[in-house]
Order: sequence, then C-alpha cells, then structure tokens
Amino acid sequence: MTARTLHDMELSGNCYKVRLFCALLGLDLEIAPVDLMAGAHKESPFIDLNPFGQVPVLEDDGNVLRDSQAILVYLARKYGGESWLPTDPAGMASVVNWLMVAENEIARGPGDARLHDKFGFPIDVENAREKAARILGLIETQLTDNEWLALDRPTIADIACMPYVALGHEGGVTLEAYPAIRAWVGRIKALPGFISMPAL
Amino acid sequence: MTARTLHDMELSGNCYKVRLFCALLGLDLEIAPVDLMAGAHKESPFIDLNPFGQVPVLEDDGNVLRDSQAILVYLARKYGGESWLPTDPAGMASVVNWLMVAENEIARGPGDARLHDKFGFPIDVENAREKAARILGLIETQLTDNEWLALDRPTIADIACMPYVALGHEGGVTLEAYPAIRAWVGRIKALPGFISMPAL
Repeated sequence: MTARTLHDMELSGNCYKVRLFCALLGLDLEIAPVDLMAGAHKESPFIDLNPFGQVPVLEDDGNVLRDSQAILVYLARKYGGESWLPTDPAGMASVVNWLMVAENEIARGPGDARLHDKFGFPIDVENAREKAARILGLIETQLTDNEWLALDRPTIADIACMPYVALGHEGGVTLEAYPAIRAWVGRIKALPGFISMPAL
Repeated sequence: MTARTLHDMELSGNCYKVRLFCALLGLDLEIAPVDLMAGAHKESPFIDLNPFGQVPVLEDDGNVLRDSQAILVYLARKYGGESWLPTDPAGMASVVNWLMVAENEIARGPGDARLHDKFGFPIDVENAREKAARILGLIETQLTDNEWLALDRPTIADIACMPYVALGHEGGVTLEAYPAIRAWVGRIKALPGFISMPAL
C-alpha cells in the first residue's frame, strides 16, 4: 500500500478541505505538519515540493499536488467515481464554477477577513468584509432553492466552499443573516465520516 | 444546430479566453456584446443569466455558464475529447492547478495591475505588481523546462493563463525578464486557428 501524505497546517481551511474529503472517502492520510510560523514553507525541503511555498501539498501514489481545489479534483477522480465530480460537461463545469468561487470570491472575502483578524495579515479588512457580504448573499440565494451548491447531491464544490464560509466568524463575518447557508453547513456536518477542525 | 452565444466584452481577457478556445476548437460563436460602461452587467436581463454580474457568460445547448475557467472546462469536455482536459486524475489535477493560478495569482497580479492602469479600478497597484513579479517568476521556472504549463501538449491551462500574462504590459508588467514566457506566448500564437485581441 502506498503512503498518502498531507503536508498540513491544522488551522488552514485549505488543508482542512483535504483532510475532510479524505475522511468522507474513507482514505487513510498521514499528516506531516509544516511549521509555517518558523517559515518552513519557504525553505527546502518543502519549497522543492511546492515552489509556491504554500500548504496544502498532497503526496499520493507518486504524484505531488498543490492547491486545495486541484487536490480535491485529483482525489475525486481517483477515488470518488462520478459521485463527487462528474465528467459530463455541464456537471463538471457546474462543480468547477464553485471551485473557482472558493479560489476567488470566498478566499478574497471571508478568507482574507480571517487572515487579517486571526493571523495579523496586512489586509484591507473592510474591503474583505464587503466582498464577504457580496459572496455570502449570492451563496444564500443559491442555497435557498438548492440543498447543495453545484448538483442535487454533495460534490467537491461543497467541500471547497464550506470551510472559509463557516470560519468567517473568526474574521468578523458571521452567518446570522444567512439561514440557508447555516442549514447547508449543517448538512455537510451530517455527512457520514465528517470530521471537524478548530473553530468550525 | 444550436446557437452558441457568448455574452462578451472585447477588452476582457476572460472573454477572450472563450473566444480563443472556440476558435481553436473550430466552433461557431455568436457574440452578444454587454455594455459594461452603461452598467448592463448589473441589470436585467443580464443579471438574471449571471447573478455575479460579470462577463463572460456562455449559452450553449441549453446550458448557461459563468466564469471563464469553468467555461473552458465545459467546452473542453464537450468538444475537445481528452486532448485539452484529460480525465485521468493526475492529468486533470495538473490542468486544474493552473486554472486556479489563472483565477487567483494571475488575476490578482498582472490582471489587477491592468484593471488599475487601463480601466481606473481603485486597486493597490504596487501590491498587484509585486504579486505579478512573484507569479511570473514561478511561471518562467515552469516554462524553462516545459513547453506547456500543465502537460506535454497545449491544454486549457495555457488558454486560461496566457491572456492576462501577455496583457500585463497594459498594467506596467512587461515580459522583458521572462524569455521562457515570451516563447510560450509565441507557441500559443502559432496554434492552428489562433485569434488575437487588442493589445495582445
């Protein structure tokens, strides 16, 4: 059996996406903590695995993968059949659309607000909170008529988008005004195999 | 035959990605210009097609698609076989990784610098240029040993990443120091069916 290793940081929502999806798929995962406070992500040997100098990195079956969304795609294709990421054009595009929302609007909104408040990043936090309000409004509308973001079942779109939405309160972005989002977070938490992370 | 319509803005690099890929695939495309200066993207009927209020939007075969990267995925799956976006886990993840770079690092680097200089967006342009230098350095390294970004052939990763890299000079981000990137842009321009856009 091949070892599957996640180069990880416990408080990273992007790392958590990978831990969560492996748990939902029932996959064993060896955790290799990266000491970001000590700058280990900017030095060898980590930087040789990922020149971008970011966690998560997944090593699996001889592949070295970066970017949490791309790692979810890899795991879904390799271990998830058609369920979590279908290969028909419209279904795949619908999932990828929400992966892009995770990479862009959610990261620049609630994600950046949390980076500022919790980790002291020099970010324009008011701007991040305005972006957060805009994307949360759009997600709320989507989830008012749909149980899941992309399709009629959970997909990696939900796994990619949920963490920084549900962690937003650590950046002053609460879900008080978004009942459909709160219900959706609850549905994800009820999935068989679900695991949590600090502050979720 | 089904009409295929792109809701488009000529100077948008994201819209150009869709026009370019359709041209490379030999697909007919009806262009429906959206008057962003008049705010048409924030009003009905456009906002009903795309609540995010952004171009491009592609209508194809009864599907309505947003986000340039997700549209490339749709077109590749529907009309491109395995060539532009393979379905094996490692190959697909490699392509998606670079789609995420287009959505994140390239947009926040050379993309934002151009939005500031060319369209007057209130963006921290020095910060955008720093991010541009960082991501262009990483892309240059990747292309020093590889002809194409993700695989040993052109994929939608190249289509997604090229436009805002090659338009960076409109935001004060030139490719002078990046010979491997310049050669790669040249290889894309030499693909059969290639079309250009203003300032490219």
